[in-house]
Amino acid sequence: MKVSEIAELLGGRVAGTAAREIRGVAALETASAEDLSFAEGPRALSKAASSQAGCILVGEGAAVEGRTTITVANPKWAFVRASNALRPRQLFEPGIHPTAVVHPEAQVAADASVGPGVVIERQARVGSRTRLAAGVTLGEGVEVGADCILYPRVTVYPGVRIGERVILHSGVVIGSDGFGYVFAEGRHHKFPQLGSVAIENDVEIGSNTTVDRGSLGTTVIGEGTKIDNLVQIAHNVRIGRHSVIAAQTGISGSSEIGNYVVMAGQVGVGPHVHIEDQAIIAGQSGVLDGKTVRKGSTVWGTPARPIAQIKKIYASLAHLPDLTRIVDDLSRRLPRSGH
Amino acid sequence: MKVSEIAELLGGRVAGTAAREIRGVAALETASAEDLSFAEGPRALSKAASSQAGCILVGEGAAVEGRTTITVANPKWAFVRASNALRPRQLFEPGIHPTAVVHPEAQVAADASVGPGVVIERQARVGSRTRLAAGVTLGEGVEVGADCILYPRVTVYPGVRIGERVILHSGVVIGSDGFGYVFAEGRHHKFPQLGSVAIENDVEIGSNTTVDRGSLGTTVIGEGTKIDNLVQIAHNVRIGRHSVIAAQTGISGSSEIGNYVVMAGQVGVGPHVHIEDQAIIAGQSGVLDGKTVRKGSTVWGTPARPIAQIKKIYASLAHLPDLTRIVDDLSRRLPRSGH
Amino acid sequence: MKVSEIAELLGGRVAGTAAREIRGVAALETASAEDLSFAEGPRALSKAASSQAGCILVGEGAAVEGRTTITVANPKWAFVRASNALRPRQLFEPGIHPTAVVHPEAQVAADASVGPGVVIERQARVGSRTRLAAGVTLGEGVEVGADCILYPRVTVYPGVRIGERVILHSGVVIGSDGFGYVFAEGRHHKFPQLGSVAIENDVEIGSNTTVDRGSLGTTVIGEGTKIDNLVQIAHNVRIGRHSVIAAQTGISGSSEIGNYVVMAGQVGVGPHVHIEDQAIIAGQSGVLDGKTVRKGSTVWGTPARPIAQIKKIYASLAHLPDLTRIVDDLSRRLPRSGH
Repeated sequence: MKVSEIAELLGGRVAGTAAREIRGVAALETASAEDLSFAEGPRALSKAASSQAGCILVGEGAAVEGRTTITVANPKWAFVRASNALRPRQLFEPGIHPTAVVHPEAQVAADASVGPGVVIERQARVGSRTRLAAGVTLGEGVEVGADCILYPRVTVYPGVRIGERVILHSGVVIGSDGFGYVFAEGRHHKFPQLGSVAIENDVEIGSNTTVDRGSLGTTVIGEGTKIDNLVQIAHNVRIGRHSVIAAQTGISGSSEIGNYVVMAGQVGVGPHVHIEDQAIIAGQSGVLDGKTVRKGSTVWGTPARPIAQIKKIYASLAHLPDLTRIVDDLSRRLPRSGH
Repeated sequence: MKVSEIAELLGGRVAGTAAREIRGVAALETASAEDLSFAEGPRALSKAASSQAGCILVGEGAAVEGRTTITVANPKWAFVRASNALRPRQLFEPGIHPTAVVHPEAQVAADASVGPGVVIERQARVGSRTRLAAGVTLGEGVEVGADCILYPRVTVYPGVRIGERVILHSGVVIGSDGFGYVFAEGRHHKFPQLGSVAIENDVEIGSNTTVDRGSLGTTVIGEGTKIDNLVQIAHNVRIGRHSVIAAQTGISGSSEIGNYVVMAGQVGVGPHVHIEDQAIIAGQSGVLDGKTVRKGSTVWGTPARPIAQIKKIYASLAHLPDLTRIVDDLSRRLPRSGH
Repeated sequence: MKVSEIAELLGGRVAGTAAREIRGVAALETASAEDLSFAEGPRALSKAASSQAGCILVGEGAAVEGRTTITVANPKWAFVRASNALRPRQLFEPGIHPTAVVHPEAQVAADASVGPGVVIERQARVGSRTRLAAGVTLGEGVEVGADCILYPRVTVYPGVRIGERVILHSGVVIGSDGFGYVFAEGRHHKFPQLGSVAIENDVEIGSNTTVDRGSLGTTVIGEGTKIDNLVQIAHNVRIGRHSVIAAQTGISGSSEIGNYVVMAGQVGVGPHVHIEDQAIIAGQSGVLDGKTVRKGSTVWGTPARPIAQIKKIYASLAHLPDLTRIVDDLSRRLPRSGH
């Protein structure tokens, strides 16, 4: 694409060589004369001056001396759009690899790509242009919509429904049994795990993350929600739309997470918790059983508290050992008889 | 099964239509006229009144107007037993899938089910009615007892012994090398990891959990113990019988966990820890190197403390910033000369 | 090997039967007359007296009555070297299993061992004596050096470079997409994840650990670094040489970890953190966004603080509820008018 074509796509203004041919995208440091890059913030803009990039996306009011630039409202977002245009999604060869094992009663779209060693069980359905990479297993009755990518060795247990444009990274497990037992007669007896999982459109789930099926109901991951690596989603959890959950976070059974929620890494959420829309949970927080995190609020710590409060507490902790000594001293100086 | 037959199985009393045919189990909200459900506690009982369930298990003294019920001592436990009777364990077609790779010196029971792409190495043994789902790998000399289910892509390293009725969910790794090195000459040298793992009868292990082999001894998971997803069990750990370990908990090398222990999610246990029988470790706790958690006690926090103490500390923390200001004020008001 | 030969290899001094034949290694408790063992510290030395081991490695100044010993400077390290000599690395049958799927444009060394169901994509390269166990997937253009072991079901995404003598345990995922999105028009848009991962020589990575590719740059794991199970390494992280990272630790995007760093289990490292050489991060610590941990320092807690400080804080916490009561009492006894 020519710089001028990219500018047109993005609705931006060119400064410099509009006719230059751009073939890829790269970071400022590694970009060549055929790469598009972007610069946001003063540090990036100073790097931009010495970048070899053929074209740099910049925000309003920013200029880079001697470089070809396109001015846009949101350089990073423009970079994503340009990147998608310059590097269209790789289409995999349609068809079923001869080593795949597909049940005769499964339905696989003619233009889906089914890799080596894939196993598709009875009555499973695979949508158009969806790619199942090597070693993916779809259990009985699983539905996977169109334009999905399931990376190597994803396991989908029976009955799970997956929407369109869903990306599941390698090692993801969807629909394994929830962790539910009844203790009787001196041992734990498995509670029936007969529910399912629904993964809505445009969800992405990171490597080795696990999502358990509902015990009697359904575990739901809402549209557009993004989940990082090694996250645990327990049975009957319901996550709303466009939420973001970072690595190694764990959400216990029957908790509800709203829309546009942000959870940082290693957060622990107890059972029956309500995290309302647009709440933010900082890293390593612990939200205790049955608690509610209010709409739009930010919490941190274990037990999770409003961020302003916990920051004060953490700051005060530095003085706690001194405080103990001072109070001991005050107690000695203020004799009990004095009151 | 007729309602009367279920009542007989459970030793319960029918109120309503004893002759009704029941074919499955479901939650109160989703049950149909052919489903069995259960109601425990006032909230569930109020839901029960409007449930479509064909039969509802209730506790002594509870009645649901206009519904067919069976009165039992423990409705949830009765539900588990009835569910097992109504939905007997699915038996998989016995035999070895043609794409499986089974060493000629391996022994696989004639009624075991070995799925596509399974690899069974030399001298491994697989018991009766055990199911190895797609992509399971059993290393040399591995023993898996009768009536086990290994879900897709479970890896069992050489020499591991697995008892009967064990369930390993997808992505579980049993017997990988422990994390042990000797630092010498400026680098870490791998300490021999020559031990093994023993998984006793009736253990269930969740998706993507990892259990390392002993370095020179054996890592043991005792009978009836249940382990959730993404848990890490290090080398030479010994876990007793009928304990429960929730998701993302990690247990460091050579620690011993007793019988009937309960560990919530994201707990960290240092090396050489002793957690005695019936102890409870609350979520995200950290039990430090070499510590002992006493029999039947409940601890929480990092470092883990008795639950009553840590709850007081967490409550006090809310006042800590104020406390600091008050003490500053007191110090100013009580001049040094005053003592 | 004879005891005398082992002593020669280790540069140690024999006391006892130098001509005894040793065939293996074992712990003091389980060793037989043909096993080598080692004893370090008073507890181990007292065990050594009743051990059946054919030969025991001991430190300078230690003697074990009635046992054959070899005195060395560092018994544990000597044990590792002797173990390597007694049990040379198992060489797997070279060749490509007939069920493996190897692209015609891939290059696999003639003496590499490629197991059942392995998938090697276009232009991938596999070095001499490297073993790819069952179900390993190497994406397009992946390079794996000589003498590596990739255990069952390791996934390596396209373009990743792996050095020599690297060990990747079962379920490891290298090169999955980083967790990067741009929020615009009410939803999260995937930021390009076009970078790569470089794993240098002598790295070992534990089961089900995940290492994301750089977004535009490269995620690097330096030479000799050892990573435990279920660890998360995010995009663009750079880890130096000979560092050690214990289980379930997570390192966020663009953080830099130095050489000879030690991180205990369940540590969380925010984005853009610098952990300098030889720093030690205690278990469950949280190092906040953008922070630096100084060379050689030890930190603990969330937020991470110098270990001496945090230990005092944790000790003081035990008295915090009392402190609150004492200060209340002091406040009552020191009337406001008194100053």
